[in-house]
Amino acid sequence: MDSVANSAKAAAATMARLDSKVIAAGLRAAADALDGRAEELAELADRETALGTPRLVGEVARTTGQLWLFADVVEQGRHFERKVSELPEGAPARTLHKINIPLGVVAVFAASNFPFAFSVAGGDTASALAAGNSVIVKAHHGHPQTSMQVGRIVSEALVGAGCPTGTLQVIHGGDAVGRALVLHHDVAAVGFTGSTVGGRALSDIAASREDPIPVFAEQGSINPVVIAPTAFGDAERVGRQFAASVLAGHGQFCTKPGVLLVPDSHADDLVEILRREMTAPAEMYLLTDKIHSQFTAKIDELRSAHAVDIWISEFSPGGYSVPAMLAVADLATYLSTPALSEEIFGPAVVVVRLSGITELKRAIQSFTGNLTATVHGDPADEWVKLATERMAQRVGRMVYGGVPTGVAVDRAMHHGGPYPSSSSSLYTSVGEDAIKRFVRPIAYQDFPDDLLPVAARA
Amino acid sequence: MDSVANSAKAAAATMARLDSKVIAAGLRAAADALDGRAEELAELADRETALGTPRLVGEVARTTGQLWLFADVVEQGRHFERKVSELPEGAPARTLHKINIPLGVVAVFAASNFPFAFSVAGGDTASALAAGNSVIVKAHHGHPQTSMQVGRIVSEALVGAGCPTGTLQVIHGGDAVGRALVLHHDVAAVGFTGSTVGGRALSDIAASREDPIPVFAEQGSINPVVIAPTAFGDAERVGRQFAASVLAGHGQFCTKPGVLLVPDSHADDLVEILRREMTAPAEMYLLTDKIHSQFTAKIDELRSAHAVDIWISEFSPGGYSVPAMLAVADLATYLSTPALSEEIFGPAVVVVRLSGITELKRAIQSFTGNLTATVHGDPADEWVKLATERMAQRVGRMVYGGVPTGVAVDRAMHHGGPYPSSSSSLYTSVGEDAIKRFVRPIAYQDFPDDLLPVAARA
Repeated sequence: MDSVANSAKAAAATMARLDSKVIAAGLRAAADALDGRAEELAELADRETALGTPRLVGEVARTTGQLWLFADVVEQGRHFERKVSELPEGAPARTLHKINIPLGVVAVFAASNFPFAFSVAGGDTASALAAGNSVIVKAHHGHPQTSMQVGRIVSEALVGAGCPTGTLQVIHGGDAVGRALVLHHDVAAVGFTGSTVGGRALSDIAASREDPIPVFAEQGSINPVVIAPTAFGDAERVGRQFAASVLAGHGQFCTKPGVLLVPDSHADDLVEILRREMTAPAEMYLLTDKIHSQFTAKIDELRSAHAVDIWISEFSPGGYSVPAMLAVADLATYLSTPALSEEIFGPAVVVVRLSGITELKRAIQSFTGNLTATVHGDPADEWVKLATERMAQRVGRMVYGGVPTGVAVDRAMHHGGPYPSSSSSLYTSVGEDAIKRFVRPIAYQDFPDDLLPVAARA
Repeated sequence: MDSVANSAKAAAATMARLDSKVIAAGLRAAADALDGRAEELAELADRETALGTPRLVGEVARTTGQLWLFADVVEQGRHFERKVSELPEGAPARTLHKINIPLGVVAVFAASNFPFAFSVAGGDTASALAAGNSVIVKAHHGHPQTSMQVGRIVSEALVGAGCPTGTLQVIHGGDAVGRALVLHHDVAAVGFTGSTVGGRALSDIAASREDPIPVFAEQGSINPVVIAPTAFGDAERVGRQFAASVLAGHGQFCTKPGVLLVPDSHADDLVEILRREMTAPAEMYLLTDKIHSQFTAKIDELRSAHAVDIWISEFSPGGYSVPAMLAVADLATYLSTPALSEEIFGPAVVVVRLSGITELKRAIQSFTGNLTATVHGDPADEWVKLATERMAQRVGRMVYGGVPTGVAVDRAMHHGGPYPSSSSSLYTSVGEDAIKRFVRPIAYQDFPDDLLPVAARA
């Protein structure tokens, strides 16, 4: 660990002095190198994750698109957020130049469910590098070969473009390695995508340091959906949309719609469509042994729960294969059955029958922080108005008329939310603003131009 | 505590829906009301803090200037940081509207050393209110009457302008009250100005919650100063500047220059000027019993330290009265004497004699995070270049040719720094960006205009 950290520290010192155009060139070279080997990488990742080559080729493209986006931001210097003030006579300063500077060495914990977009070359790494930091990625044990290969390709590309050796390093290991990484005195910040339990553990370790460091953890979510009475004019379309969203990535997206709140009078229609659409044509494999055993245990638990109507699709057991699951319950049962209201990571969704708007209020009241909430129905529908206002207090992204899966990589995106969906609701892990997690501001007061960092002069 | 928190929670819910023009009006009404009673408030505060009426009248003006600044930001809606995107065909969303929204109830811990500017109506309160939160201030026990009076005046002004009752509440009490406040489930964030020990205690409490909340603590600093050989052409001016800066507020500013690094060959000249200038004409009283006893204990400790040359000014003992103190040591002594390198809160400064640039490097290497660093000398001086580059890695604000005391309230100001000078180096507690501590982003995806919050539509 010390040798990796030393190398990262030396790289960070060099990165901090590099012209940001070199960093932009490094990000683009990395993107090009990954794009050039997308098929090969997707096949390797499919052997490790069973997520399917087409989806994985698409994920490489999303990953490299992200690298390109950050390269543009860095080349234009937008991440510096440069501000210059001339102060009036009598003020304690005459001029102030404020810019953002990198934190140093950033530790990134890769996710299991996105072997590219939230892994070695994913959003955390891309935004930390863009900010001018060096990065140590702790690979996810679910796709070690893919991690090593991506690490090699990106690292070579960065160095080829002029970034120092040690700018990106990949390490492997269990909880002890992760703990040592977060405690290492040269590590200045942590990015994480995974479970609430995992993210909280890292936050607690970071908070215990003599010099606490920030942990930006994206920790999962149940992503409630409110389907108002007026949405059932086209129940078929709504049902198909949500079945596809629940099954995408075999239900292993942090934005998977986990609970659908529906008026009791329309619930049977929706459930019928969902069951038909969730009779998955392809076999679904989960990412790891742990995810598989947690999912099957959850089905068993719910099967014995009182007043919960459980349906599972036909499937061929074997490996980490699982069926799709649909659970239906009334609100009282939902609220009194923890297994229903916790995140179920895998191809499962819970439909909650509501007797009316009073029950809708009670349901919303029960939610803690979430990444997203989705609302379907007419804008004038009381359910829609209520859900829009009240869910906004509990989530980081509101979706109208669509599905929460599919996170646009854009400057106006927010991917994060109140605890426990993320460790800090003030930050996004997707889109341009993700860079802000890995910079800190500094002000130069009354400095002559020659002594200012280049980015502050511009 | 529960009744205060309930009232704050109800107020936060109303504030979140208020037109931001009403909040701007509330901030201005508060500023006007304080300005109208500046003399009376300064006299009250002087009885509690002995900081002197002229300085305290000035501090009221700084405080109300800050309220005006935030009112302008809020009226223009700059704090929303609104971003709108139309996404290309094939993207997972068609439109995104991103804005910042308030966190809810913010707890503010007032400082002892600024009974106005970092207390009940200070920067933390002003920025939290500006963001649309309600605020509970835990008053500092060093000026309880001033706190109550300011709380009454500001609260009435806010309510008069249309903000809800409970928007600003002031509570009093010791550590147990502070702890209960940080642990209260309705409190969403904490602002603090004070010692490293105090800030860390609050951070640890917040991190232990079931739902951890952010603590933005400004925790003190030694504010190193490098006076390069080329600065001694005008030693008289430099010496006078720093003597005044050390004695300002009786040495109780978080930006007080605590250690001066000077070339050995010029040290005697500087020390002579400092001693002459620090022979304080007025008596100096410290803010609290605790600060007084810590300061006098520090003098006693340093008097018995090996190889430390201690000088104190003449003074009349009594109450919390203290002399000014000047300690002089070589680098080896400085590095091996913790009492010299720790923050000394009060009218004291340490001069460190350096044999050359190698010792300058070692001295800088020894510093942890600081709010500021100051450099004096010619831009071409090797000392200046080295100090500028290396100190920037350790501080939040670099000052050239001036003094660190006097923090301009401006959009390009940064008041914060790496741990332990603040709990999070990513934020400022002074200037427009201070608002960012108390908002979180939310993205609305594909929402019809009618359902968007007013601030997102604009």
